[in-house]
Amino acid sequence: MSIIYLESKDNPKIKHLRALIEQNQYRKKQQQTVLESTHACLAWLDSGQKIHAFFTTEAALKHPDLQDIQELHTGHIFIISEVLYKSLSTLGTTIACLAVIDIPRHTQTINYNVDTLILDDVQDPGNVGTLLRSAAAANIKQILCTPAVASLWSPRVLRAGMGAHFSLCCFERVDLTNVLPQFEIPVYATNSHQANTLYEQDLKNPCVWILGNEGQGISEFALAHAKAVTIPQPGGQESLNVAIAGSICFFEMVRQRT
Amino acid sequence: MSIIYLESKDNPKIKHLRALIEQNQYRKKQQQTVLESTHACLAWLDSGQKIHAFFTTEAALKHPDLQDIQELHTGHIFIISEVLYKSLSTLGTTIACLAVIDIPRHTQTINYNVDTLILDDVQDPGNVGTLLRSAAAANIKQILCTPAVASLWSPRVLRAGMGAHFSLCCFERVDLTNVLPQFEIPVYATNSHQANTLYEQDLKNPCVWILGNEGQGISEFALAHAKAVTIPQPGGQESLNVAIAGSICFFEMVRQRT
Repeated sequence: MSIIYLESKDNPKIKHLRALIEQNQYRKKQQQTVLESTHACLAWLDSGQKIHAFFTTEAALKHPDLQDIQELHTGHIFIISEVLYKSLSTLGTTIACLAVIDIPRHTQTINYNVDTLILDDVQDPGNVGTLLRSAAAANIKQILCTPAVASLWSPRVLRAGMGAHFSLCCFERVDLTNVLPQFEIPVYATNSHQANTLYEQDLKNPCVWILGNEGQGISEFALAHAKAVTIPQPGGQESLNVAIAGSICFFEMVRQRT
Repeated sequence: MSIIYLESKDNPKIKHLRALIEQNQYRKKQQQTVLESTHACLAWLDSGQKIHAFFTTEAALKHPDLQDIQELHTGHIFIISEVLYKSLSTLGTTIACLAVIDIPRHTQTINYNVDTLILDDVQDPGNVGTLLRSAAAANIKQILCTPAVASLWSPRVLRAGMGAHFSLCCFERVDLTNVLPQFEIPVYATNSHQANTLYEQDLKNPCVWILGNEGQGISEFALAHAKAVTIPQPGGQESLNVAIAGSICFFEMVRQRT
């Protein structure tokens, strides 16, 4: 391991880094992404994975989190200027940290008998990341995403996920018309206009949760293949944030199984 | 009601609008803020309140939401250019909408016997707004905020609140050392290292929920005056997002009262 100073924004390593941060298509083509927080890096290294290239600033190098990263990261550390760091970082993390990693590939196929979260066109990166974080905490390990869902490996989704990505089995660009009919366990969708409340459901056995787009809700096809349940809202608001609604469902399941 | 075209960014009305959007101190001094979405404007007008000055673009004027706003808004409508709108809007709302309103004043004092949410240095505007939205849905009407909480009437908190602000009784810059000892109803704080789980608590009667800072958690003083409860996380994640944790608590309370 050695420390290497990079000064030019036109260095090929910096160009590669910038393209991974900024371009969804480039991430897909390269099958790489960038972790922008020391918390995410440590979670990644702790899960036994490797960082390809680690970029930070001279000032950040003294931070205790960086010391921990240096103990686990066996490759080079590239030092860039504060100005260059600020021009690259999308999150404005205070402790400079940009780590290029391979997007994990898994060889599993979809398991139709385990707790599953289906994201049906959920578009806000913060909502998607938060849902992954809550699902992981609730021990839901399988995530299926329709093509319009925010890219799971974008910096914003990774930030909100707080490391949850690394313990989940995620399938992107899933065709629900193909997948949904194959589940033999109960499939639930949240919907604010139903008579069945969440709290009436028996959630002790594996089940599927479908969460829909922030504006449009759940697609008709998905609704036709799910039991719609509502979360009672005595305050009379018209709806909850989708990440909140999903998490309330997941933890009602946790409660019934505790 | 008439439609007035404003062209200069130096027009006093535009300068006032920009300062309200950008400066927390100016909002406090003027006791005004800006709603940046048609959804928030309609919720505001529906609650019987008035808009001081409404700004939009010529293109947005034809949108059905603007038609609804024009039916309820009795004042002038100021038309600004797309370029000027984009330089003002913090949220980048697709339907141009900037509405100057008075921050509601209430004359109530704190009620120590009703369901209450206390935000103890919660700093992310999205988390604060989402917590207000969930609290309103769960019929928690009283909100107390310590001085370091994100300003409730900032555009980002208002956006995440989705109109919840208008049905709540909010107290900002509250001194917890003064307030907390006065509650005679149970006070709960979420904490991930406690043996007492949320699901063991009897939440049928009014209670207080304290939620803490994203990084530091709940202050020692608050913890000393609260019963710490934990949300079981069978997936073994270290913590949930604060807005998620709070909402799970609020809706466990709703479940027990349903």
